[in-house]
Amino acid sequence: MKKYLFGSMLLIAISGSPSLAQSPAKVVEDFKPSSVNQPGKEFPKVNSEGRVRTQINARDAHKVQLDIGAVKYDLVKDTSGVWTGESAPQDEGFHYYQIWVDGAAVPDPGSLYFYGAGRWGSGIEIPAKDQDFYALKNVPHGELREVHYFSSSSNSVRHAFIYTPPGYDKDNSKRYPVLYLQHGMGENETGWGNQGHASLIMDNLIAEGKAVPFIIVMENSSVKFERPREPKPDANAKTDATTKKPAGPMGGFDFAGDFKKVLLNDLIPFVEANYRVVADLNHRAMAGLSMGGMQTRIITLANPDKFSQVGMFSGGSISMEDITKTPDFKKNVKLLFISYGSRELDNPRKGPWGDPKENTQAVKEAGMNTSFYVSPLTAHEWQSWRRSLYQFAQIVFKN
Amino acid sequence: MKKYLFGSMLLIAISGSPSLAQSPAKVVEDFKPSSVNQPGKEFPKVNSEGRVRTQINARDAHKVQLDIGAVKYDLVKDTSGVWTGESAPQDEGFHYYQIWVDGAAVPDPGSLYFYGAGRWGSGIEIPAKDQDFYALKNVPHGELREVHYFSSSSNSVRHAFIYTPPGYDKDNSKRYPVLYLQHGMGENETGWGNQGHASLIMDNLIAEGKAVPFIIVMENSSVKFERPREPKPDANAKTDATTKKPAGPMGGFDFAGDFKKVLLNDLIPFVEANYRVVADLNHRAMAGLSMGGMQTRIITLANPDKFSQVGMFSGGSISMEDITKTPDFKKNVKLLFISYGSRELDNPRKGPWGDPKENTQAVKEAGMNTSFYVSPLTAHEWQSWRRSLYQFAQIVFKN
Repeated sequence: MKKYLFGSMLLIAISGSPSLAQSPAKVVEDFKPSSVNQPGKEFPKVNSEGRVRTQINARDAHKVQLDIGAVKYDLVKDTSGVWTGESAPQDEGFHYYQIWVDGAAVPDPGSLYFYGAGRWGSGIEIPAKDQDFYALKNVPHGELREVHYFSSSSNSVRHAFIYTPPGYDKDNSKRYPVLYLQHGMGENETGWGNQGHASLIMDNLIAEGKAVPFIIVMENSSVKFERPREPKPDANAKTDATTKKPAGPMGGFDFAGDFKKVLLNDLIPFVEANYRVVADLNHRAMAGLSMGGMQTRIITLANPDKFSQVGMFSGGSISMEDITKTPDFKKNVKLLFISYGSRELDNPRKGPWGDPKENTQAVKEAGMNTSFYVSPLTAHEWQSWRRSLYQFAQIVFKN
Repeated sequence: MKKYLFGSMLLIAISGSPSLAQSPAKVVEDFKPSSVNQPGKEFPKVNSEGRVRTQINARDAHKVQLDIGAVKYDLVKDTSGVWTGESAPQDEGFHYYQIWVDGAAVPDPGSLYFYGAGRWGSGIEIPAKDQDFYALKNVPHGELREVHYFSSSSNSVRHAFIYTPPGYDKDNSKRYPVLYLQHGMGENETGWGNQGHASLIMDNLIAEGKAVPFIIVMENSSVKFERPREPKPDANAKTDATTKKPAGPMGGFDFAGDFKKVLLNDLIPFVEANYRVVADLNHRAMAGLSMGGMQTRIITLANPDKFSQVGMFSGGSISMEDITKTPDFKKNVKLLFISYGSRELDNPRKGPWGDPKENTQAVKEAGMNTSFYVSPLTAHEWQSWRRSLYQFAQIVFKN
C-alpha cells in the first residue's frame, strides 16, 4: 500500500529523470489550442491522440524540454529561436506539466496555472469523451465563494472556498447538506474549484435533477501549525513507540492531525453558524482524493458521530478490521464510496489497509451501504477524481 | 494625454529593451521572502530599499535576467548552477515582473502569479508604509464570489467576481448599493480581487465604520464579441468619418463598445435580479483604473441616468466640455472621484480630455461634488489604485 499509494502520488510530482523518449515520427496533425491556455495563446496544443505540443521562444537556449507524465521530451529549435515539440499520447483529462530551459524548470508561459505538485505550474487538458459532465452550460449556476474565518486552533485567519448551489440566496428558508471535500498531497484548497471543476459538475447534475443540492466546503488540509521548536532528536535513535510521532505507513508524516483540529473545532462550526446547512450527522459528508481520501479515512473513523457519508477517491478504503474497531462507523455511515482510476488497479497490490475492492466488498457484505467505482482508463489523476465526484454526488445524501 | 496615458500603460507591459543597469554594489542585506511567494519558497526576496532579489536554478544557462520596472538585471551564476541577483529599488506596492532564461521570458517559479500585461505572470510586493489598510485581519469578512451568468449580448455564459460585504447573508431584509469596478488594459476580472486586495480593503474599512457597506462587481471589460468577418478595408484608405470606427484618441481601439452592452444589458440586470441591491441611480457606482477609468468615463457620460457615483483612477477626468455636452451628468452625479499616482503627475501634460487636476477643479467650481486624490510616490501601479479604492470607498454612497 505504501509503495502503491506513494508511487502514484509521486507520479504527480515532477520527475527529475533524464530524457527518456522522443515522440515517434507519425504524429496526427490535428492539434488544437488547449482549453486551459492563457487568453489568446496558441500553444500548448493537443491532438486527437492526446499528444501535447508546446512552443517557446528561447533563442539563446541550447536545450529545451517538455516535461509531462514523468517523461521529458526534447523540443526542436527553428532558425528564429522558437522551440517546438510534442509528447507521447497522454490519458484523457487534466495533467500538470512544466518546461525545462537550459536546466531551469519553469511554467509554460502559454498555459494557465494550477496548484499541484507543491507549486503553481502549468496544466493541460486532454479532451475527454465524457467531458460534457463538467462543461460550462447555460444552466442555473451556483457560486464559488472565497471566505475567511478565524481559526482558534491555528490562531490565524484562514480562508476556504465554499460552493453554494444555484438558488441558495433565493429561498432563505431552505437548508442544505454539506460535503467537506479535500484535495491531494501537494495541492491546496483551489484544486477542486480549478482543475476539479467541482462547481460545474454540481451545476450540471443539479440542472438534470441527478443530485440533491448541497454545499461543498474546500479548505487546505496540508495544515501544520507553527509550534515552539522542540529539541532535535538524536539522529541515531530509531523512531519507535517512545517518540511522539511513530513512523506510520506514511513515514511519520502527521497526515490529519492539525487539519483535524481546524476542521472539527473551527471550520465546521464556522460553516454551521454562517451558512444555511442542516447541522447534523445525516447531512454531513466528508470526501477527498489521494491524501485527502486518507485524511477522510482517519477523521471519519475517529469521529463516527460526525459524518454519515464518506468518500475516498484513490485514497484507501475501509476494512473489516476498521469497522470492528469502530462499530459506530458501521452504524452511522449511510454511504461509503470508494473509487480508483482503472490504471491504479491494473497491478494487484496490498497495503496496511488491504485491497480496496476486497475491503469494500467485505464491509458491504457486513451490511454497509457501499459503492465502488472505477474510472475507465485513467490513473492517479484529476479525471479519475472529477468522475468520482460526479458519481458520488449522485448518491450522497439520498439514504 | 495620449502619450502620457499610453506611455504609462506600456510601463506595465514587458519591456523588450536590452539590459540597462546593474544594481550598485551597496545593497542592504536585510532581504525577506516576498509576501506573495508560493508556499514554502524562499525567493524572490525584498529588502528595506525595495530591491527585489531572485534566484533560479538553471545550471546549463548562460544568461539569466530579472525583468522588472522595464529594466533587465543580470543574475550571477554560482558553481552549482544557481543564478541570483537583484534589481534597483522599486516603489512601494505591487509590481509585475518576469525572468529571462537564455532568451525565454518565463514566470519566476518562486512567485505567485497574477494576470496583467496580457498574461499570467509573476508579481512582487514591496512592503508599503501604509499596507495596514489592506492587511488580512481578524475582523468580519465579506465574501468574494465567482458567479456565472448568461450574456445575451455575447450569447455566452460569462463569469464575474462579486464582493458581498460581511453579514450579507445574515440579514435578508437589508439591501446594498453596488459598485461596478473595472481593471486596466491587459488585466482581467481577477485583478481587483488578487493584486488589488479589494475585499480586504472593504472588510477593514467596514470594520472601522469608515465605509458604507456595498457590493462590488468585477467583470472582464476587455470584451470583443465574435462577429462575422467583415471585408478587409482598403489598406490605403485613410480612416475618417466615413468608416465605422474612426480613429479616436486610442487609435481606433473600441474602448467600451462591447463591454458597454454586456454591462448595461446583461450584467447589471443579472446583479439586480440576483443580489439584494438598491436598484436605482443613487445606489449605483462605476469606477475603474487606467483603461477601466476611461471606460467608466465613456459609459457614465453616455448613461447619466445610470450612475450617480463615478471614480476614475489614473484613467482620465471629466472636463467642462463634457458636462456642457451632457448636462444630466452634472445633474445626476453626486460624486466624481479622480485620482492619480504622484509620479504620473510629475510631468505636466495635456491630452484630449485636458489636465485632470484642472478639469476636476473646473467642474467642482461649476457645482459638482468632486474629489481629487494623489497617491504619494507611486506611478501607474496597483499601489495607486489600492489607495484610490481606499479613498473612494470612504466617500462613495454618502451623498
